[in-house]
Amino acid sequence: MTVEVFLTSYNLAEEDVKDHTVVVIDVLRAASTIATALHHGARAVVAVPDMAEAGKIASNLDQSSYLLGGERDAEKIEGYHLGNSPLEYTPEAVSGRTIILNTTNGTNAIAKARAARHLLIGSFLNAGRVVDFVKQAGLDVTIVCAGRRNRVSLEDTLCAGMMLSRLWDGKEPGLRSDTAHIAFTQYQTDKDHLEREILRCNHAQGLREKGYEADVDYCLQVDGLPVLPYFRENQLVLLDESELASVL
Amino acid sequence: MTVEVFLTSYNLAEEDVKDHTVVVIDVLRAASTIATALHHGARAVVAVPDMAEAGKIASNLDQSSYLLGGERDAEKIEGYHLGNSPLEYTPEAVSGRTIILNTTNGTNAIAKARAARHLLIGSFLNAGRVVDFVKQAGLDVTIVCAGRRNRVSLEDTLCAGMMLSRLWDGKEPGLRSDTAHIAFTQYQTDKDHLEREILRCNHAQGLREKGYEADVDYCLQVDGLPVLPYFRENQLVLLDESELASVL
Repeated sequence: MTVEVFLTSYNLAEEDVKDHTVVVIDVLRAASTIATALHHGARAVVAVPDMAEAGKIASNLDQSSYLLGGERDAEKIEGYHLGNSPLEYTPEAVSGRTIILNTTNGTNAIAKARAARHLLIGSFLNAGRVVDFVKQAGLDVTIVCAGRRNRVSLEDTLCAGMMLSRLWDGKEPGLRSDTAHIAFTQYQTDKDHLEREILRCNHAQGLREKGYEADVDYCLQVDGLPVLPYFRENQLVLLDESELASVL
Repeated sequence: MTVEVFLTSYNLAEEDVKDHTVVVIDVLRAASTIATALHHGARAVVAVPDMAEAGKIASNLDQSSYLLGGERDAEKIEGYHLGNSPLEYTPEAVSGRTIILNTTNGTNAIAKARAARHLLIGSFLNAGRVVDFVKQAGLDVTIVCAGRRNRVSLEDTLCAGMMLSRLWDGKEPGLRSDTAHIAFTQYQTDKDHLEREILRCNHAQGLREKGYEADVDYCLQVDGLPVLPYFRENQLVLLDESELASVL
């Protein structure tokens, strides 16, 4: 099983994902929000890159069956039902609904990875569950960090490093790519004070300035929500244990 | 003095370089080749992004006054005088000539950074000399890693980390960007076996497969060539001590 890491989704090509298990990481906050929404009973999450696409999909659905969620510059998009804070995605709000989610970084990464054999959404909340799936699938794996505004972000790099560390049982192999080495090194260096490092990363600082500190704390709960958001028929759904065999 | 690091030049904007001292790093091999050519007496290096631009510039110069250098997929471009191996840029070959250099990654990074107040080209060969200039200039600094095919490369990240470590006297400040933290961490982790780590990075492995192992060894000589390639009037020239005062 080869392991490759993209520290941003820029330049991700179809050959990097085809026949692979692909994990798209967007810790703050799309991936954490998707895991939360599905865990709280959302029927599915459709990730879209812009408002036009969101509107197009919504126009084909019954008004009571969906919610529009998403952010620009961390804030809820005008006229949308929900922003990109996972704490808004309560069972009361989302149960039984399809979420049309329009976010800046994570959604673009998902769009680029859709040709994958298996496409999963990962964050600290479900890192362990994702790694279990990757091991069971046994395919080559590509970890794609969404990053922030097409730049490398610390929180996604650390989450990738955590997944690598678990895949490799804490021991780096002799042969690994530059970016896998960088993500693994960062996690090994910061793992004993993960919270401190992420609280002062650029993205977390920006969210705290806008009053979203509770979101950051929530997204840092390692293995707090061991669910498997899985891309199927153009949307993300929860894959439960009973369905694993049919997929693998 | 703020310090920012771009792990690839993708997404570098004018506001990231304007009024800044900018260091473009491309260890393997453009930055090492530029330092070598200028040290060996080349009048100037003009970095160009493609063959069309190279031809345009050449057509305005006397045939005996310039050399065309450059690579595609690590190999010399057909019809060019020189490839991108620093070892080809001997005093005999380059003295008194203008080098028109067409390379894949480094040249693009330079093109994006040309609005800088000071634009320098950095590698392991001249890391110390570049850091001295950055300190003397006293401006905010942006370190731009060329990377490889728009992806993060280990060798450039390590060189950026070395420069940060020297700028910060080995001690990371409390407030730093995500990417500065990543480059610094990587250097701190790998610095005691820098050669081993770089020899097994993706780019070095590719060069060795094509027979360029001597280039890799050459480019790893830390502070081996303490020169200052400086961008002025659309070309890179050597800035010597006597000119420092006029520039700063």
